[in-house]
Amino acid sequence: MSGRWTVGVDFGGTNVKAGLVSPAGRVVATRLLSSKAVGRPARFVEGLGEAVEDLARSVGSRPDKLRGVGVGAPGQVDAERGVVLSLVNVPGWRRVPLRRLLERRLGCRCAVDNDANLFALGEFTFGAGRGAQCLVCLTLGTGLGGGIIVNGALYRGASGAAGEPGHMVIDPDGPRCGCGVKGCLEAHVGAAALVRMGRRAIRQGAEPLRTLVRKAGGRLTPALLGQAARQGDAAARRIWVEFGRSLGIGLGNMVNLLNPDRIVLGGGVAGAWALFYPTLIRTVRAQALEVSARAVGIVRARLGDHAGIVGAAVLLWRTA
Amino acid sequence: MSGRWTVGVDFGGTNVKAGLVSPAGRVVATRLLSSKAVGRPARFVEGLGEAVEDLARSVGSRPDKLRGVGVGAPGQVDAERGVVLSLVNVPGWRRVPLRRLLERRLGCRCAVDNDANLFALGEFTFGAGRGAQCLVCLTLGTGLGGGIIVNGALYRGASGAAGEPGHMVIDPDGPRCGCGVKGCLEAHVGAAALVRMGRRAIRQGAEPLRTLVRKAGGRLTPALLGQAARQGDAAARRIWVEFGRSLGIGLGNMVNLLNPDRIVLGGGVAGAWALFYPTLIRTVRAQALEVSARAVGIVRARLGDHAGIVGAAVLLWRTA
Repeated sequence: MSGRWTVGVDFGGTNVKAGLVSPAGRVVATRLLSSKAVGRPARFVEGLGEAVEDLARSVGSRPDKLRGVGVGAPGQVDAERGVVLSLVNVPGWRRVPLRRLLERRLGCRCAVDNDANLFALGEFTFGAGRGAQCLVCLTLGTGLGGGIIVNGALYRGASGAAGEPGHMVIDPDGPRCGCGVKGCLEAHVGAAALVRMGRRAIRQGAEPLRTLVRKAGGRLTPALLGQAARQGDAAARRIWVEFGRSLGIGLGNMVNLLNPDRIVLGGGVAGAWALFYPTLIRTVRAQALEVSARAVGIVRARLGDHAGIVGAAVLLWRTA
Repeated sequence: MSGRWTVGVDFGGTNVKAGLVSPAGRVVATRLLSSKAVGRPARFVEGLGEAVEDLARSVGSRPDKLRGVGVGAPGQVDAERGVVLSLVNVPGWRRVPLRRLLERRLGCRCAVDNDANLFALGEFTFGAGRGAQCLVCLTLGTGLGGGIIVNGALYRGASGAAGEPGHMVIDPDGPRCGCGVKGCLEAHVGAAALVRMGRRAIRQGAEPLRTLVRKAGGRLTPALLGQAARQGDAAARRIWVEFGRSLGIGLGNMVNLLNPDRIVLGGGVAGAWALFYPTLIRTVRAQALEVSARAVGIVRARLGDHAGIVGAAVLLWRTA
């Protein structure tokens, strides 16, 4: 059936995953592009072109017979023009007309947007955000991405840059953020902050965190910090409580400003949900005004690793 | 001409001002209701009824010949149903169906909303917010009110409570806010915070602030703090710099989250504009992401004391 399949592309900082998405939002096959493909736009377009051909072939089709290809990129995107303005930590990408380049290569319609926006679109359409009137979605990982959906449409702001909760200052005397400013939310709850707090805990003798990290070759990750806390490491547990408090302040601010009826949290760090959620929800309820605090449900994302791929497909359908 | 005139009502915490508004948004006459009218809903409806009759008479008309009456109330309002849910610091108002009560008394259409929303509607339609795609309006005074207008429509959130920037926490170790939480923006830049900082400066010998306050019978106000700073009081100047920094952090957070193209600041405290604006804009530019920082203009409100009245009239027109 021609035009039935869509390819959604989740363009991460270190690898690129393309998936074949059914009209019902199911990902039926995926291809992983090598990290080499990320570095330069021309190589990315070629690598992705081959992956899309391969995916189309797997259902007996061709790229130009697809419904189209949607791409989520980790950086600033002019979604209207399909231009990647810049990527976080990838200097080779400046004002790349990715939609045009891909359409020329593939012969089907393409669409491009910021990855956190597509995470939000995916969860809104098929995941934990379904039915929300005002939805705020956050990805918890290395950075803190955000997407806002109001009355079913992405809220983009005046120049397409809306939804950057990571650089909300919640403590002007707090740790310095990668952006140079002190006390950003990302500097409190980004993966680097968790690792920094974990290292400090290890220096103070945290167990079993220290042993877990040693066994992992010295590499401390948020996942290990979660494991240590679940195994009873008191210092690790305190770090997640602190994480919940900081994230709760940020979410409380958004609740007071935007009065959403749902907030969806995804990304790898959300895996520690049970360790931070009780503190997070207590903080939000204490801080947000009553009407808004009562109106909001804070829930975990449901689409897992596929949220970006599904969201990219939804983007393509919506720009049809 | 029947239906030409609208009455806009600015229902403040201590007094109520009603104004006759022309179709071009000009306020041609006003009436001030006594503070006694505020206390109880029945008395408010009767007092306002008389003021509206008086205003209508002044142009040879009657309330039931007006285009209608719009009211902005300082508290939580269910604008859709025209019900005042609660007023700040006025216990007698709980779930008052004000629109229905007024329509019955006056015989014309009425509409009710939160006062900060109406300030935003007024500035958007006839003032400093004209032409903005995404507009954030703040009133600087005892409290910090907010209204957000996106693509020409008030952004209300999931339960009508959106736009509460005053209770955005910008420093969890900061001063305690009236709401009970530590470090709210309002606890940094509300009138009470300015007065608190001013008193501390006086204890440390600030001049001419001390003399000015003494001459005013000991009453320290933000206006006096501005006057002292303009007369060269170094401590007073520092307070306004600190004010600009705190407000800049709050606005920077909103810029990163909402990417507005304009922010309009009004309310009495905005009179000290020249004293805080340089620090404010520097803080916003340092903190907000580049694309969003470049997109936003931060300007003073233009409608002065009449913004609420005009906005209330605009509300009525829009719910026509």
